[in-house]
This record gives sequence, C-alpha cells and structure tokens, in this order.
Amino acid sequence: MAIWLLLLFLHLFSSSAVTTAKNIRHGFPSSIVQPEQRILGSKTGHELYEEKFFTQILDHFNYNPQSYETFQQRYLINDNYWGGGADKNAPIFVYTGNEGDIEWFAQNTGFMFETAPIFKALLLFIEHRYYGKSMPFGGSKERAYANSSTLGYLSATQALADYATLILDLKKNLTAIDSPVVVFGGSYGGMLAAWFRLKYPHVAVGALASSAPILNFDNITSPFSFNNIITHDFRSESENCYKVIKRSWQEIDDTAAKPGGLEILRKSFRICKNYISGEALKGWLGTAYTYTAMTDYPTPTNFLAPLPAYPVKQMCKAIDDPKTGNNTFEKLYGAANVYYNYTGDATCFDLADDSDPHGLGGWTWQACTEMILLTDGNTEDSIFPPNNYSYNDRFVFCKDNYNIEPRPTWIPTQFGAHNIYRVLKRFGSNIIFFNGLRDPWSGGGVLKDISKSLVAIVAKEGAHHVDLRFSTSEDPKWLEDVRNREVRIISKWLSQYYRTLAHSSDYYNN
Amino acid sequence: MAIWLLLLFLHLFSSSAVTTAKNIRHGFPSSIVQPEQRILGSKTGHELYEEKFFTQILDHFNYNPQSYETFQQRYLINDNYWGGGADKNAPIFVYTGNEGDIEWFAQNTGFMFETAPIFKALLLFIEHRYYGKSMPFGGSKERAYANSSTLGYLSATQALADYATLILDLKKNLTAIDSPVVVFGGSYGGMLAAWFRLKYPHVAVGALASSAPILNFDNITSPFSFNNIITHDFRSESENCYKVIKRSWQEIDDTAAKPGGLEILRKSFRICKNYISGEALKGWLGTAYTYTAMTDYPTPTNFLAPLPAYPVKQMCKAIDDPKTGNNTFEKLYGAANVYYNYTGDATCFDLADDSDPHGLGGWTWQACTEMILLTDGNTEDSIFPPNNYSYNDRFVFCKDNYNIEPRPTWIPTQFGAHNIYRVLKRFGSNIIFFNGLRDPWSGGGVLKDISKSLVAIVAKEGAHHVDLRFSTSEDPKWLEDVRNREVRIISKWLSQYYRTLAHSSDYYNN
Repeated sequence: MAIWLLLLFLHLFSSSAVTTAKNIRHGFPSSIVQPEQRILGSKTGHELYEEKFFTQILDHFNYNPQSYETFQQRYLINDNYWGGGADKNAPIFVYTGNEGDIEWFAQNTGFMFETAPIFKALLLFIEHRYYGKSMPFGGSKERAYANSSTLGYLSATQALADYATLILDLKKNLTAIDSPVVVFGGSYGGMLAAWFRLKYPHVAVGALASSAPILNFDNITSPFSFNNIITHDFRSESENCYKVIKRSWQEIDDTAAKPGGLEILRKSFRICKNYISGEALKGWLGTAYTYTAMTDYPTPTNFLAPLPAYPVKQMCKAIDDPKTGNNTFEKLYGAANVYYNYTGDATCFDLADDSDPHGLGGWTWQACTEMILLTDGNTEDSIFPPNNYSYNDRFVFCKDNYNIEPRPTWIPTQFGAHNIYRVLKRFGSNIIFFNGLRDPWSGGGVLKDISKSLVAIVAKEGAHHVDLRFSTSEDPKWLEDVRNREVRIISKWLSQYYRTLAHSSDYYNN
Repeated sequence: MAIWLLLLFLHLFSSSAVTTAKNIRHGFPSSIVQPEQRILGSKTGHELYEEKFFTQILDHFNYNPQSYETFQQRYLINDNYWGGGADKNAPIFVYTGNEGDIEWFAQNTGFMFETAPIFKALLLFIEHRYYGKSMPFGGSKERAYANSSTLGYLSATQALADYATLILDLKKNLTAIDSPVVVFGGSYGGMLAAWFRLKYPHVAVGALASSAPILNFDNITSPFSFNNIITHDFRSESENCYKVIKRSWQEIDDTAAKPGGLEILRKSFRICKNYISGEALKGWLGTAYTYTAMTDYPTPTNFLAPLPAYPVKQMCKAIDDPKTGNNTFEKLYGAANVYYNYTGDATCFDLADDSDPHGLGGWTWQACTEMILLTDGNTEDSIFPPNNYSYNDRFVFCKDNYNIEPRPTWIPTQFGAHNIYRVLKRFGSNIIFFNGLRDPWSGGGVLKDISKSLVAIVAKEGAHHVDLRFSTSEDPKWLEDVRNREVRIISKWLSQYYRTLAHSSDYYNN
C-alpha cells in the first residue's frame, strides 16, 4: 500500500507550495490497475511478450551535438497472433506507453491481447522515455532525473516522435511497410494515442484513445470538473455517504488539534506508529475516495490491493451500514478499508511510505512543464472542502523544485483543444474517444462525436479506461457493447485501409 | 550579380566535398524574385507593412534551462484591408516565412496584397528564425551562426511552432480569436504552409502551398527529376539549344586545360580579372540555366537583374540565332547575358562574388540536418554532364563543416511523404498544392488531387510559385485562371468556416 497514491490528494487541504509539491507528484494516476491474474492465469508478463530495445535519438527537433545522443528505448512485442507475418500486411497494434513501467500497462491492456487474434495483429507496447527501463543518459535514472538539464528532454512531443521513429524502423526491419498500424492508449497514454493519429497519420491509420482528458488544459475544462465527478459518484450511491465524508474533514481537523487527538486518529484508522498528521490522514482518505472513483469497475479487480466490484458502492455501504461502530471515524475507517485492505491482511497503514512501484515519478516533471491539467477546484457542494484551484501553487512549486516555469498554453497550442468540435469537424479521421462518466477524468474528455470517424463512446457506468481491461465473464452488457463497437470500428478502419491499398498502385510513382 | 546564385550549381561538375559544400550553400533557391516595382509603384516595403517583433521562445519541445531563452522574431503586418477589425471575425492571411529576409518574401508575394481587399484580410508575414532580423542569441547573427550548438535550434519544426505561438498570441492581443487564419507560402515557405495546416489545423483553416516540393525526400522523388525538368525546359524550346549547351561542358573543360585557355574563357564570357577557373565558369553558366528555368515566367520580371518574359526561350534564341558570333562560347555568352545582364549594364562578371543579399546562408545548415532534398542526378540525356546523385557527398560535407550527420529520413518521418495520396485520402483538408511544370522543383510536388479538399493545381506553363507574384496586365489567361481558382477555393474554406462558427455555439462548453 504505497503512499504515493496519497500524494495526489493532499492539495485539497492546503495551498502551500509544499503541499502542492506532493499533490502534483504522480498527479496523473492513470492505468492504476493490476493485471487480471485470473485471465492471465499463471502466465507472467514475460510469457505474454518479448522485451526488446531500440536505439532512440535524444532530441528529434534540434540539431545541437547533444541532440544526437541516443538511449535504449524498451518495447514489448508479441507476434503470436500475427497472421501470415509481413507478407499479408497484417496489422500492428501499438500501445503508446504512458508515465510508468511499460510492463504494467501491457499487463493491464487485455483488450489488445484479446483483439489481436481477431485481426491477426502484431502487438507492440512502447515504453515512454524516462520511464521504466527507457532512461536517457546511459540508462541511469539517477543521471536522467538529475536536474532540469537532463530532464529537459522529457516531453510528450519527444515521446510521440520516439514512437513514430521506432514504428517506422521496426516496420522496415520486419519488411512490413504496408502493415497498417493502430495505436491504443489509456489516460495519458490515450492522449498520446489521439495526438499520434492527429500528428502522424502516415504512421497510424487510427487510434483508440481511452479516458484521454485532452481537453483538460487552459481552462477548457473547468478545474472543478474532476472533483465534481467524484462527488457525484458518491452522492449517486447514497446521500448519507456523501454527507458523512463531506462533514468528516472538519472533524479530523478538530480532533488533530486537540491534545491527544492524533493518537485518537491513529487508533481509529490503524495508522502505523512512524508518522501521522491530520493533513497526511486527510490525504490518505482523499486518495482512497479518488482512486476508488477512478476505478469504480463493475467487476472485482486487482489494484494495489484487490478491490470488489463497484467499490464506491461498497465504500458507501461501509459508511451507511457500519460493521465496526457508529462514529464517523469508524465509518470512514470501514470505507478506507475497502480500498486499502480488502483482503484484511494489513496490520497498520504507513502514511510515510513514498514508494513508487510503477515508476511514475517523472510525472512530477511533466506536470511542471507542459501537463498543466488543473483538477484542484472544489465547489461548495464538493465532497471535499471547498477551495479554488490555483495555478499559482503549481507555478511556485515548479519554480522551487526545478527552477522552471510551466508552459500552460503549450499543449493546446501544439495539439489543439479549444473548439475541438469545430476545428476537427472537417479535419482528421479514425479516432475513438472512450470515456466512462464515473471517471473523474471524463470531464476533460471528448464526449460527443466530432465527425463520422472521430467518434465518442461514452459509458455512463464506466470508469477509467475500463474498456482496455481484460474481459471477464461477469462483465456487464454495456461493457461488452462498448468493446464490440470498438472492434467493429477498428475493423472498418482496417478494411478501408486494405481497400485503398489495393487500389493505390497507380499512385506510387507520383 | 551575386555569385551566391552560382553556388547552387557547382555540384553538377564534381563530387568533391568542397564542391558539394558550395552546392548546398543556398541549395534551395526559392522565391528568388524581386518585387514588381511597376505594381508597387513608388512604394517601398515599409509603406506596404509595419515591422514588429515578438518575443519568441528558443525551444518549444524541450524544457532544459536554455530552452527558455527567447529571441525577437520579426513580423510584418498590414491592416489596411482588415474589414471591421476583430469584431467581424475578418480573416488573417499569414505568410509562413522561408529561408531569408521576410521583407524579400513579402515584396514578392503580391497575391496576398491583391486578395486581401477581396476578403478584408489582415496580412501577416512572419520571418523564419535564424533569418533576416530574427536571430536567436541576442539578435546576433555571428553568435547564432557560431557553431552547431547555437545553430541547433534552426529547424522546420521549431519554425512551425514559432508560427503557431505567434499567431495565437497575436489573435489574443487583437481580440480576434475567431478570425480564421489562412497560411501562404512558396517553395520552402510552401512546404511550411502545407505542414502547418497538417500539424496545426486548430490554428489555420487552410493553406496555399505554392511550389512546395514536400515529396523531394528519401528517394520518393527521383534525384534525376530536378535536372530532367531543366533539360526538358530547354529542349522544349529548341533541340539545337539543348545540344549546344550539352556539348559545351566538355569544350569548356578542354579549353580550360589548354595553355592560355582560361584567358580565352575570360575574354569570351567577360569574366572579371580577379578570379576564373573552368569549374567556376561552368557553375556560373549552370546557375544561369537553372535559375532561368525556375523563373521562366510569362512576363518580364525583376530578379537580381531584370529578366524578359519567357527567359528560357530568350536564352535559346541567343544560342540558335546568335548576334555576337557563331562559336559555342559566343552563343553561351549570349545566353548567359539574358540572365546576368539583360540591361546591358555589366562591365564584367565576378566569379568570386559570394555576397548573399537576401540572407539565405542558414540554408546550408538546414541542408545538412533535415532538408535532404537531393536534386543532383543527371541522366545521359541531361543538359548537364551525366552523374549520379550522391548522398555521401552531402554527408561528408556536413561532417566536415559542422561535425554533424544529416537525418535524411526525419522529415518524412515527421511530416509524411511516402504514399501521400493514400495516407491523406481520408485525413486532413483545405490545402492547395500549386505547381508549375516548368519549375524543376515541381517533380517533388503534389501533382494530383489527394481528396476533394486537398487539391493540386498544375500549370503546364508555370514556373516557381508564379501564382504568388503580383499580377500584371500581360499575365496569360492560364495564370489568371490559376489565381481565380485559388481565390474561389480560399473563399469556400472561409464560407465553410463561418457557417460552422455560426452553428457551433452549442459546442462551446464541451
């Protein structure tokens, strides 16, 4: 039970730079789900794919001497399903890796493994630079993360260029130049997938961008949206549950301020002896609510600890119908247990644990440079204490920590976001934007069709990129429908591609 | 009569690295035409536009400390025609500056001045970084061009990002956020215009890309194409003219090798006393043929010296029907005079003059990094001596001069070029690709419609971005037709934009 999950949330309760620091560390908790061991059976990741490395250029856009340095970029490959190999122009499905170890994402993107046999597709999962084993500067994370001079090359645009370069090189080496590529991604990886189709249409024929909040920039999406959705998730289960949580923050503050109060809190929540504070405890609880809302999946899943189906409902049940007692802290403890201790194995909860098992630390840098996804606002009705969002907190933190200023308008300048429905009405094609409305990130997603081939699939009951997960026998019909529709759309892209390919020989020697 | 024009051409006659060096200096002789003084009347450039500066970021794609440095980027603005100002959402026409002083391009893009009143458009000409007055590193060309560390930030991708950043900022400052932007460019500027629409569809609603050889990369266009077209231009005027020129190279070599031969050549061609060599003379002649083919316009134009209408025809006339004598050198001298001395003012020709009046020197760097437009091949039938093109020459030169290796596949990796008809069949919209088939660069252009809104306009009789020039009363009908068609298409883009804008209010709060 790593405390890094907790860090996201501290900002709700303070606007100090230090707290913001913790907040934006791992600020984009995407794809935070473990592989479905049940589906994978006894297979380990290494049996699902082969690990390879590609010599990647450090800087695609400049030509100073340092730009020519290279690093080893990791990718995972599975050719078990690749029908006929290169000869038949069978497709290549590529996961555009996001902010963490690529194995973690591969193991949590069962949809690609399950659809590969249908399309006889080659599977490729490319690790994002500066994450996992894909470290510039000699492969050393210590050196790569040393300071802003070395971290400077960590940006979305460089990552997209990495993907284009690697894919084209690999296709050449596999003599699969005419194999169509479809890109997939969830969360930040979904943003990358959508942007990749928009910027590299000559490399990918289409993109499935799942839970990609590409509109969560530059005030296009309200900074209150994220927590409004969490509020709605809980409130939709039970008004009492919402009220108990909403009232609890003050009660925790009051207790923490009393003599002996921290000991009361420690005992109530079974916090380990090494560290406790009221702020840390609130962060710990807030993280639980937030991540539970994000992963409010309809079937049992493995996260960092196992979660039941519909975990928000289970949390509210623990509050509304407490087993262990009837005061607020006991109720909250029951709710927290759903998230932190569903198996009942935990002996105490360590609020000082800052382990980062999936290697998400680089996100702090990204959140200080271009990924200015503001989600901190809380209205009066919020399940969290009301507060305005603050770009200034972010600014101060980034200045303090990296001596760097964020560029909050750069992502929309480069990738577009304002008026997306108008701008892309007659430009671009072949992107699926999936969003589940239980997911707090869905507020920054594309929720309406832009055109006939830039389509939005919205699942009222869905959570964070639930469509990309391995299927289970208990999946509800709406989820099966979503995945079937995605398969049909991808199938259409590929048919269209092959038809065009068959009739394009006359164009070759332009 | 600057010798820089000559430098393009030396490569035809040698494959040594030194010669290649000279060859690729100013390797992309685009927009090499002077303003039509007749049309501009007594107006100087400064009356056509106001000069302004924008504080631009050095590196858009990385976040190292140096990336945050800024420089003053020049742009020219003309709001004489801007109907109703920002309130009416009147359009903004932007020239995406290429490899030289922006005033030179502005003064040679009469089409924008002439169409602005029709559309009540604001005119904007943005200077490309590292050219003219837009020098990073304190505005000092000496510092900016000092070495590969400082030159490193000179790339097409950075330039496009500059344009997006500047345009969006300017629109905000003019409270003209909903004014549609159309981009225009010729030659390399045309490549930038096309790529800008493809990469920044949220900034520009359409692009007129004139004589943009975006397919002249990675062997998509044959390296023999460029000189084949020059050959065809001359041969189509007169088979004798072609043969005289084709045979002359050997004769020059033979003469130069004889005792006293260089003096014969000097006298025959009125070369100044400071410098002569057989290679330099051939380069000087080759430059004349090449640039005359590129600017084989149907009306008299001002280049570095005035040119008559249909100058290739005039050159061949000088060869076929010599006034000054009947030997080969006298014929060639007559032809060279059409290009170098149409007014008859020259007393001698200085082969050592390496002045660069339009500041095109940065192209050498671009040609050593990403702009690997190979045009050096000559078939047996070429008007120039047969030779294979050589990427290796380029490589050696760049290694020697900058200790840098070109990245010949990067432009097609980033912008796409292979199978463009297939790739963009269902992606992208609103680009006009104009090409004149007399123009040797047309071989690398888009010569067929890609889709209904990615259209090719091809003028059999046209030369290098002739459509962008100021109109004259002697323009042939085909040229009027081309410009009228361009205006109609742009008009359609704008109407469509305004219709969508009027009906898109429901989309605003996505």
